[in-house]
This record gives sequence, structure tokens and C-alpha cells, in this order.
Amino acid sequence: MPDATPSLPAYTHVLAVDIGGTKVDAAVVSIDGEVVRESVSRRTTGRAADRAEIARNVRDAAEAALAAAPDARVGAIGVGSAGPVDLPSRSVSPLNLPLAAGLSIDDVLGGLVDGPIHLALDGTCIALAEHWRGALVGADDAMAIVVSTGVGGGFVLGGRPVTGASGNAGHLGQTFVRTIEGDEVVASTLEAVAAGPGTVAWAQAQGWVGETGLDLAASHAAGDEIAIAAVRRSASAVGQAIAAAATLCDLEAVAIAGGFSHVAPDYIDQVREAAQTAALHTYAKRCRIVGSGLDGDGPLLGAAALALQS
Amino acid sequence: MPDATPSLPAYTHVLAVDIGGTKVDAAVVSIDGEVVRESVSRRTTGRAADRAEIARNVRDAAEAALAAAPDARVGAIGVGSAGPVDLPSRSVSPLNLPLAAGLSIDDVLGGLVDGPIHLALDGTCIALAEHWRGALVGADDAMAIVVSTGVGGGFVLGGRPVTGASGNAGHLGQTFVRTIEGDEVVASTLEAVAAGPGTVAWAQAQGWVGETGLDLAASHAAGDEIAIAAVRRSASAVGQAIAAAATLCDLEAVAIAGGFSHVAPDYIDQVREAAQTAALHTYAKRCRIVGSGLDGDGPLLGAAALALQS
Repeated sequence: MPDATPSLPAYTHVLAVDIGGTKVDAAVVSIDGEVVRESVSRRTTGRAADRAEIARNVRDAAEAALAAAPDARVGAIGVGSAGPVDLPSRSVSPLNLPLAAGLSIDDVLGGLVDGPIHLALDGTCIALAEHWRGALVGADDAMAIVVSTGVGGGFVLGGRPVTGASGNAGHLGQTFVRTIEGDEVVASTLEAVAAGPGTVAWAQAQGWVGETGLDLAASHAAGDEIAIAAVRRSASAVGQAIAAAATLCDLEAVAIAGGFSHVAPDYIDQVREAAQTAALHTYAKRCRIVGSGLDGDGPLLGAAALALQS
Repeated sequence: MPDATPSLPAYTHVLAVDIGGTKVDAAVVSIDGEVVRESVSRRTTGRAADRAEIARNVRDAAEAALAAAPDARVGAIGVGSAGPVDLPSRSVSPLNLPLAAGLSIDDVLGGLVDGPIHLALDGTCIALAEHWRGALVGADDAMAIVVSTGVGGGFVLGGRPVTGASGNAGHLGQTFVRTIEGDEVVASTLEAVAAGPGTVAWAQAQGWVGETGLDLAASHAAGDEIAIAAVRRSASAVGQAIAAAATLCDLEAVAIAGGFSHVAPDYIDQVREAAQTAALHTYAKRCRIVGSGLDGDGPLLGAAALALQS
């Protein structure tokens, strides 16, 4: 009987690279989505590093990962990067790496592997990872967002990653939300209102004494009223922005990842409630809002998914 | 020498159907995008009509179109409909046709043509038409919007129509914008602020004497200050919403169609300025904003494009 299974690629692994504002991670990942643990390699990036240093550290991390998995047949590279990215020129210009603007992925990673190099926004990679192995399995019109020191995101629409013209589709943090401050309705970007730093700053302005998102989580757990209000303000804004995205893109599901989404145990529930209230149409109210189904390997898994699906 | 041209479909024409709030249009369209003029057929729909009447009129329009093009080999049907639509159940529930909610496209149009029936939101069809023969040719990450008695729209992303989970992606009119009313920032849906009826109502509230969008266009042309402010308010809101969509979906271009977009000769220019001001990222500022490249056949061409591309 003929075998209908599509032929697998001739390689067994891909190299996954995740370029962030403070660090770059690399690992060898099997085509089944297993991260080769001993290959996980990290180098620093950072705001003060110049382009040559960042290029060297990205390549170092990649080489270290490959060296630690000598038996893997690595046939492609997937790179997720903090944005903005520019897919037409295959370069990245992360906001938090100002001295590295225009970093060419081919210059940095060329020649390491006998195979193609695929690039996408980190948010797109997270969406791919959630769709492959996380909370968005089976949801072909979906978004993943990351609530952390910023708010990023990415799309899978019609079962495929949607990158937009330059690669930055999914940047939910730069859309506008309304908040009520005293008697006024204020319009701000979601990122300014809802990410960790903005939420901490708002709580401090109300008289809360603390410095970090972790402090805020502790205060919330202890029942501090300002911390509770600050968390609600963040979750409400995220819910509002998700309702708008679910309306505009008719999303089946949204997965929420990122450290700040753990600031309170019911953070996702609060987001869901806010989205329900903000959505006007039945099809947008139906959008499922869930926590991430991935662990800390999410960004690397996403970069691997990119390499495998491209 | 072998011919590398992909084989054309065995038919020469498709049947295009556009279901709207007041009327349904149907026509036979060639695979090259020529509307068979004598086949164009219109029947009424309307808020008061019940489901049986609307079903009958849609089928009547389709039958009349086919009867008027007896020599065409029609191999598929494309249907664009006012939303919401529900692609999984292949039914439509236009807001302005409340008595027809859940109208099944297969029940209404089945058996007319030996070939498949494709359904999409009217906004998706307009995006397909602009991408095929209008202002979005060559723009593979783009949106078309229609500013009329409402504000609708649709996406082509990655060169393909993106419909979302239930088919309603592109509904820009239901996203939120900010306006300044007196001293207050007010958040409203784009449709409430910027479509014809909302704009006329706002002008009336400021003391303008007139009834319709055409009246407003005349007052604008005559230099009436309230009319000028009302048009600017609409264009600003549309620009703001486009900037948000261009940020979220990383759009290369947006085409603006619809009767109300002709309320002033510089309406598109005003929208473009507002979008430039509202967009924070270079990639979103780059988004090209243009008037429609289609004439009144746009909706039918879009339904034909849907039938041809599916």
C-alpha cells in the first residue's frame, strides 16, 4: 500500500535563534519540537552594545548551540527578533538595541548551516509556537501576545503566519486604548498603559510603594488596593485591545504570554471579562482568550517552527 | 516548446452576486474581469423584507443575470454579502436585513450553476477587487475600506484574502477612535463617528441645516464652516483607525471607497494626513492611502474575483 505521509525534510533538526533587547538565545531543535537541552546558549545584547558586538554575540550563541549538538543534522535556521524588523531587506532594528539598527541576518548567521535562514518578528514566532505546540493548536485564525516590559504579538491567520508588508504585523502594543483617569477619558497606546513599567508607574503615582512587577504581584497577593486597581487597569486595557483586534481580524483565539501576565492569578480572567465587555459583535465576543500553553522555550520553539514551516 | 502557462478553468465566466441592505445585484463576469453589461440585474432587499422574500429576490437577480448571458459558460458563483457573515455555516445575517438572519447561500443559490458557490463578506470582496483590478494591484498586504452609511472593509494579506474565523475580518467600522468634543476626549466606534449618518448628525448638532451626505458635500463646496469641520472630523477618525490597522497588520496600502469618501475633493488627503499623525512607527507611516481604483462595478468584480481565486 502506498504511504501517503508527506516526505520529511532530509534534516533532523533546525537552529533556532531569538534576538531580544537584553540577550540572544540559540538552540538546536528537532523537527518534532524537542529542544536539545544541552545546546541552549545565551549571550548578552543590550542597549549599550554596538552593532559589531551584537553581531558577534548572536553568532557566538548560534555557534555554541550547533557545537553542543554535533550529531544533529541541522538543515535550516529560524530567527525571531524584537522589532521592528524589515523582512524585505532581511534586517532587524530592535527598539532596545539602537546601536544595532539594520543588523543583517544573513551577514550575522550566513554560512553556519547548509540551508536557508528564515526571519520573523518575535511576536510572529510566538504565534507560530502557540499554534504548533501551545494554546492555539487547531485555531487557524489566532493571535499570540506577550505582556512584559512591552506588549508585542503576532498572527496566524488562515492557518499561516501573517507578517504584513515589512514583517511587523501583530504589534498590538502600539494600538490605542481608552482609560479613565479621574474624570477624564485618556487615549494611550496599550503598551504605555498595560505593560509592566507603565502599570508600576501608575501604581506609584497613586501612592503605592514598590519598584517592580514582582513587587506589584506581591502587593496584589497581599490584597493591596492600589495594586489590585493597577492590575485591573492593565488587564482592562489588554482586553479592550484584544476586542478591537478580534473585531478587525475575526480571531478565534488569543493566547497571552509574558511575565507580566502572571502578575495576578486571575489576570487572564480579567482580560477576558474586559474583552467581553468591549466587543460589540457576536463573532468578536466568541474569541477565546487563554494563557500561554508554552514554557520558557516558547520563543525558541517559535523560531524553530518558522524554519520548519517556511 | 512546452507551454508554461497554467491551464485556465474550463469555463469562461462566473456569476457574481452582491447582497446589500437595500438591494441585491447580480451579473455574469468574464474570467478577465469584464462585466457582461446586459446581465446586470438588481432586486430590492430592505429592512422590512422577510427571509423568504429576500431569498426569492436574490435568486431572481441571479437567474435574470444568467438568462441575459446565455452564451457564457458559467462555472462558479461568488457571493459578497453585507455582514456579519458566517462562513462555517455558509450563511449571512446582514445587520440591515434583520428578518433574513441566517440566510443560507446554498439554499438560495443552489443548482443555478454547475460549479461551486463561494461566499465572503462584501468588504473582503472589495479588497479582492481593488487587488485584482483597482488601486491595490501589486499590494499584497492591504486593506480596502468603504465609507458610506457604515464603514466596512476587508483584507488581502500575504496576497490572499484573509477572512478570519467566521468571515468578518476587516470590519474597521467597529474599532474605536478618539474624538475631541468640546473639552472631552470621547471614544466611539469609527462607524458612529465617521460614516455619513454620524457625520450629518454631528453637523446638525452644531447648527448646520441639511439632511444628507449630498447636502453636506454641497455645503462643504460652498465653504460652510460647520460642513468643513464635520468632514475633517470624519476624515480624522478614518485616518486614526487606518493608522491603528496599519500598525496591527503592517499594511502596505489602504484603498478607500464608498459614497461618503466623495463628500469633499480632498477627503482622501485629509485621511492620509490624519493617519500620518496617528501612526507611531515608520512601517505604519509608510502605508499608502489612496482612493478606490474601481467604478460602481467594484462589488460585483470582487464577488467574481472571489469565485475565481477560491
